[in-house]
Amino acid sequence: MATLSDIGVAAAINILSAFAFFLAFAILRIQPLNDRVYFPKWYLKGLRCSPLANGAFVSKFVNLDFRSYARFLNWMPAALQMPEPELIDHAGLDSAVYLRIYLLGLKIFVPIAFLAFTIMVPVNWTNNTLEHSGLTFSDIDKLSISNIPNGSLRFWTHLIMAYAFTFWTCYVLKREYEIVASLRLHFLASEQRRPDQFTVLVKNVPPDPDESISELVEHFFLVNHPEHYLSHQVVYNANKLSELVNEKKKIQNWLDYYQNKYERNPSKRPLLKQMGFLGLWGESVDAVDFYTAKTERLSRDISLEREKITSNPKSIMAAAFVSFKTRWGAAVCAQTQQCRNPTIWLTEWAPEPRDVYWENLSIPFVFLTIRRLIVAVAFFFLTFFFVIPIAIVQSLANIESIEKALPFLKPIIEVKVIKSFIQGFLPGIALKIFLLFLPTILMIMSKFEGFISLSALERRSASRYYFFQFINVFLGSIITGTAFQQLNNFIHQSTNEIPKTIGASIPMKATFFITYIMVDGWAGVAAEILRLKPLIIYHLKNFFLVKTEKDREEAMDPGTIGFNTGEPQIQLYFLLGLVYAIVTPILLPFIIVFFALAFVVFRHQIINVYNQEYESAAAYWPDVHLRIIVALIISQLLLMGLLSTKEAASSTPLLITLPVLTIWFHRFCKGCYEPAFVRNPLQEAMMKDTLERAREPNLNLKGFLQNAYIHPVFKSADDDKIDVVMEEWEEEPSLIATKRTSKRSTPLSSKHGRSSFSSPEANKERSKT
Amino acid sequence: MATLSDIGVAAAINILSAFAFFLAFAILRIQPLNDRVYFPKWYLKGLRCSPLANGAFVSKFVNLDFRSYARFLNWMPAALQMPEPELIDHAGLDSAVYLRIYLLGLKIFVPIAFLAFTIMVPVNWTNNTLEHSGLTFSDIDKLSISNIPNGSLRFWTHLIMAYAFTFWTCYVLKREYEIVASLRLHFLASEQRRPDQFTVLVKNVPPDPDESISELVEHFFLVNHPEHYLSHQVVYNANKLSELVNEKKKIQNWLDYYQNKYERNPSKRPLLKQMGFLGLWGESVDAVDFYTAKTERLSRDISLEREKITSNPKSIMAAAFVSFKTRWGAAVCAQTQQCRNPTIWLTEWAPEPRDVYWENLSIPFVFLTIRRLIVAVAFFFLTFFFVIPIAIVQSLANIESIEKALPFLKPIIEVKVIKSFIQGFLPGIALKIFLLFLPTILMIMSKFEGFISLSALERRSASRYYFFQFINVFLGSIITGTAFQQLNNFIHQSTNEIPKTIGASIPMKATFFITYIMVDGWAGVAAEILRLKPLIIYHLKNFFLVKTEKDREEAMDPGTIGFNTGEPQIQLYFLLGLVYAIVTPILLPFIIVFFALAFVVFRHQIINVYNQEYESAAAYWPDVHLRIIVALIISQLLLMGLLSTKEAASSTPLLITLPVLTIWFHRFCKGCYEPAFVRNPLQEAMMKDTLERAREPNLNLKGFLQNAYIHPVFKSADDDKIDVVMEEWEEEPSLIATKRTSKRSTPLSSKHGRSSFSSPEANKERSKT
Repeated sequence: MATLSDIGVAAAINILSAFAFFLAFAILRIQPLNDRVYFPKWYLKGLRCSPLANGAFVSKFVNLDFRSYARFLNWMPAALQMPEPELIDHAGLDSAVYLRIYLLGLKIFVPIAFLAFTIMVPVNWTNNTLEHSGLTFSDIDKLSISNIPNGSLRFWTHLIMAYAFTFWTCYVLKREYEIVASLRLHFLASEQRRPDQFTVLVKNVPPDPDESISELVEHFFLVNHPEHYLSHQVVYNANKLSELVNEKKKIQNWLDYYQNKYERNPSKRPLLKQMGFLGLWGESVDAVDFYTAKTERLSRDISLEREKITSNPKSIMAAAFVSFKTRWGAAVCAQTQQCRNPTIWLTEWAPEPRDVYWENLSIPFVFLTIRRLIVAVAFFFLTFFFVIPIAIVQSLANIESIEKALPFLKPIIEVKVIKSFIQGFLPGIALKIFLLFLPTILMIMSKFEGFISLSALERRSASRYYFFQFINVFLGSIITGTAFQQLNNFIHQSTNEIPKTIGASIPMKATFFITYIMVDGWAGVAAEILRLKPLIIYHLKNFFLVKTEKDREEAMDPGTIGFNTGEPQIQLYFLLGLVYAIVTPILLPFIIVFFALAFVVFRHQIINVYNQEYESAAAYWPDVHLRIIVALIISQLLLMGLLSTKEAASSTPLLITLPVLTIWFHRFCKGCYEPAFVRNPLQEAMMKDTLERAREPNLNLKGFLQNAYIHPVFKSADDDKIDVVMEEWEEEPSLIATKRTSKRSTPLSSKHGRSSFSSPEANKERSKT
Repeated sequence: MATLSDIGVAAAINILSAFAFFLAFAILRIQPLNDRVYFPKWYLKGLRCSPLANGAFVSKFVNLDFRSYARFLNWMPAALQMPEPELIDHAGLDSAVYLRIYLLGLKIFVPIAFLAFTIMVPVNWTNNTLEHSGLTFSDIDKLSISNIPNGSLRFWTHLIMAYAFTFWTCYVLKREYEIVASLRLHFLASEQRRPDQFTVLVKNVPPDPDESISELVEHFFLVNHPEHYLSHQVVYNANKLSELVNEKKKIQNWLDYYQNKYERNPSKRPLLKQMGFLGLWGESVDAVDFYTAKTERLSRDISLEREKITSNPKSIMAAAFVSFKTRWGAAVCAQTQQCRNPTIWLTEWAPEPRDVYWENLSIPFVFLTIRRLIVAVAFFFLTFFFVIPIAIVQSLANIESIEKALPFLKPIIEVKVIKSFIQGFLPGIALKIFLLFLPTILMIMSKFEGFISLSALERRSASRYYFFQFINVFLGSIITGTAFQQLNNFIHQSTNEIPKTIGASIPMKATFFITYIMVDGWAGVAAEILRLKPLIIYHLKNFFLVKTEKDREEAMDPGTIGFNTGEPQIQLYFLLGLVYAIVTPILLPFIIVFFALAFVVFRHQIINVYNQEYESAAAYWPDVHLRIIVALIISQLLLMGLLSTKEAASSTPLLITLPVLTIWFHRFCKGCYEPAFVRNPLQEAMMKDTLERAREPNLNLKGFLQNAYIHPVFKSADDDKIDVVMEEWEEEPSLIATKRTSKRSTPLSSKHGRSSFSSPEANKERSKT
């Protein structure tokens, strides 16, 4: 077991590395060359121009103003200055509410830590059970519940504290849910007219021998929503077209690369071995000509494919976006069942155009349920058989077994600093590397499962990731870390023994989790701000591919928050904090430092870097709330287990009421606030409709909506036309001037749904129906 | 352990008692005197007249046609003759679908029994493990899985059978769900215009300082459903009025009693001791005068209270029935969220007027959640502390312990017949007596929980009752029966040991459950048809209270199916059948006999006796389906436990996939069919609206709806007016002539919601708003 000084060494290392990251960031950030890496958000909003355009030659690339180096941490207060309403305007509600999760961590754990250190730590410290027990122990254990003798009356303190912590957490959670719900409703209400307010996604349109999908949809809604139906937009199966477009983009990059090469060295035309592995053999051809020809061929293929899609009725999927004359009509259609067969004509709120995940729009109901089954089984195996490699690595990452396996390393390992280093670092790093592979797999699973919006995909992946982390990081570390050989016995233990076993090992694992928090939380967050990967890629692209200012814009990779990985990580800290609050309060300051640091760093990143692909108006909050509740219940069960091993059995009935009350609290909150995240109240819709009718009686809504939901691939070829169309709309009288209009100069783009406007071909198809 | 001959004795006793019940029924049934006890349904429908009115004096009371005694079982084919559509017309869909549950039992278990007896029984029988084991065993055990040696390859038969049984059960379940869903939709579609098709119940209307509830509701819906809102009906808090009316009815009964007494013996006016316990002391008064005065006082109080309720705005509850111009409008309002605060303006489909449980209409959201918590905790204690008395009784009801406790009884008990009798009967009866108390308690719990319709109350009570039976009858009998002292050890067993322990004791409890089925199932069902309690009460009332034909009508107590007790009982048989199908197939014939007998008996009762209080159009089917699925999963888990004790561990992976597939199947069915029971498709609503508009363009819907949802107590005083109002409506052109019009002569009434028409006072109040 690691001692206090081991922890000290690990803390020093991690603080130093965090500091090094910050320093590197501070220096790299103020170099004009890196401006697009560290401030891409502002470029995308069109509020920042390239510093390369003016000034002396050297100062274009290197910052020579040495005073600015002295203020190297001044980004921190800057990040905190922007008030929340402005932040919502600037980065969207998703990002602003995401920051509130960190704030929530601080709100929960700062008072808890204060209480724990003033009341519980003295109670624990003033015993000497451990000293008399003959066991090896560290000073950390002296501060923990382990130091209280079995059956002591002092456990009443912990019991009362458990109640206090639960009530405080619930209180904060309820207030936060309330705030977020009202933020969301306010955000939705104050927003400008958006196509998704009027649009409903209809899935599982049944096939009809006599009518095309488009006719069928029109007739169905004309009959069943006669006063509200406005228009609809069929969905094309454009997966092949997307592939072609992506390929063209890749070829275009190579073409740019060789053209750049040629321009820099005009004496020699770049050659290329046409065939074979890595261009090692085959006939040499002129690279520029080769790729130009290839690009042209692809362009031809693309326009052919596009023609084919729009003319072939078979490429129309059994889904459609149906638009209504009023928000009220759309709200009604989205919330009701249309047909007596509940597996066809399924309606739901259309996601934002850029939030749509097009590939999944037409999966029949039966296949959806089968896919869910397959994914559930696959996820089960992924979760429960991933335990084994982690356990092996962790049992190796223990000094004694390393010495046994590789005895020649013994002299090196026995050096005190190295020993501390290995003990403090290795288990955390092993875990972290394993977890790197995971999000991609989980995302693929969610996609296979058939969700139709990016936000839903991310939410689902996040909950899977959290479950995985709970089983493998939390439980895995607690059980295998202490006694891997006990795992097998553990499966055969009694139901009421499980919380006991886990509860009893919790105090022993405190030091492990402290190092984990420092590696993953402190240093990890600090590394986030450096953006090493985007930095390198940007400079590579900049050097090889970029020709115009527009290319440079495309070379930027602002990235996103990454809800599917970020949120489960935060949740793990909530879990650790709640579990250890009673048991080993010394862990709390480490968690508080994490929350504070992450809050500042991510606030900075959200303001300056990240560019969200979609805006779901904080639709993920019910998940966040639920997971904190689950963490709370787990902490209560484990405390119950721990106390029952401490012969404080009289506390059990009092402890059982805690999870009951917590579950009840969750159901109460769910009833009060969750509908705000799922449904759309008719009152609101009617209010906005009435207002709009009064202010703009001659609104051409049909024109506004007609091409909103077109597959993004249809527009990639005619970027020019967009601006024309866009400006047409911008000319309409707009009531509330928001900063969103700034996208006129540089459209806020995202990977999947760059634009909401369509190709002329698609328009043709529309007018035919 | 009971032997085959013990079972034979028990079977003989139960068959004889069932036969005796049938014989008694056959004789009592054809006495004209009992006609109203055994055919009340026909009287209520107005299709049968009192046989007392004509014929010779003696034959008025006693059937002298001796030929009719010879055909004493001819009610059975008669009960089976009525075709299902006519049955739905006659008794409602609820009753018709309720019978399908018994039929479902036959559909599932007859083929299963056939398979089990042709394949599994020979496989079990051709071993002699038990003979070599030295244990005592009966012939029944030779037919069961116990007779297969540990680790035998013959377990593959059971494994394959488990798959076959699961697939067959799922197939039947799916088909049945499909049929019931389409029956429901067809029933709803073919029904005449009913007020609940146009009406939505709005709960949690927020208080407003400036407007009355009625104004508030009107304004809210005029604003948010401007094109569809028609009218509304506020809900009065008439609980005190109901009490007064009930008291008056009781007093009226006493008055009738004394008047009858006086008429029979006019020489002596009946006296009554005015005060004190059971009228034992105090001043004597003339009973008729006393009760006449009391009735008059109560009548005055009632009209005062009625005046008070209609004039006092505080007696208006925060709920209302809102009616719409179209079914489409109502369907939309019921399925959508109205207000941004999801705890106010809650809308849901209005139950049928006679289905409304008026007392619960205005419970605020917060109280509702608190009530749910309280009931959940109370139910937990009820369920888990009820185990103890049953266990005590059962351990007493075992020959050895009786002999030990009461040694002087030994010579009597040791008589072979008596011994068999005790062993076969006692445990079943002890259980049955315990369970008699339960439904009332569970119903009170459901009422406290705040459900707003009788059908929901019964559904909830049924699921609680089933859970209770599962824990206490099923698990309780299996575990405590074999080894009450093991119960304590059992709590401390491992998770994977629990199915093993239960699974291993299942074969041993087969004989217990066989006797239970015979007592509870065979004899119990046969006793149901005799209607002993209603018979006695009817004759008492007839003798003491009845003066007019109308009184006699009120003296009838047709009763209802009693979904809250009947369905969980059937479910217990499903559970037993599915669990024992693999283990001890000899149990199956007993269950099949139960289902067949119960089907015939309840079909007879539904046709001739029961009068449902409400019609929920088989809204309970999802619950029925779910519980059979749960039983299936339990049977799979227990089989897994049993086989793992039999050293057939290689079967475990194959057995684990069974519950996974079953759960998936359930989710699939839920997605496909459940919405038909919960939501109302807009397409259907629109279709009926359009049809109606075309056929009856001048329909006065407002008049039709205006008094549909008035508290039943407001109309109890003016029965006369109802007929007038009713006939008014009957005169309207009605499109589909159904047998429902037969209620014109004798209205089909029910306990809680006799009528849908209101008092003049209430009308006055309506016209004011």
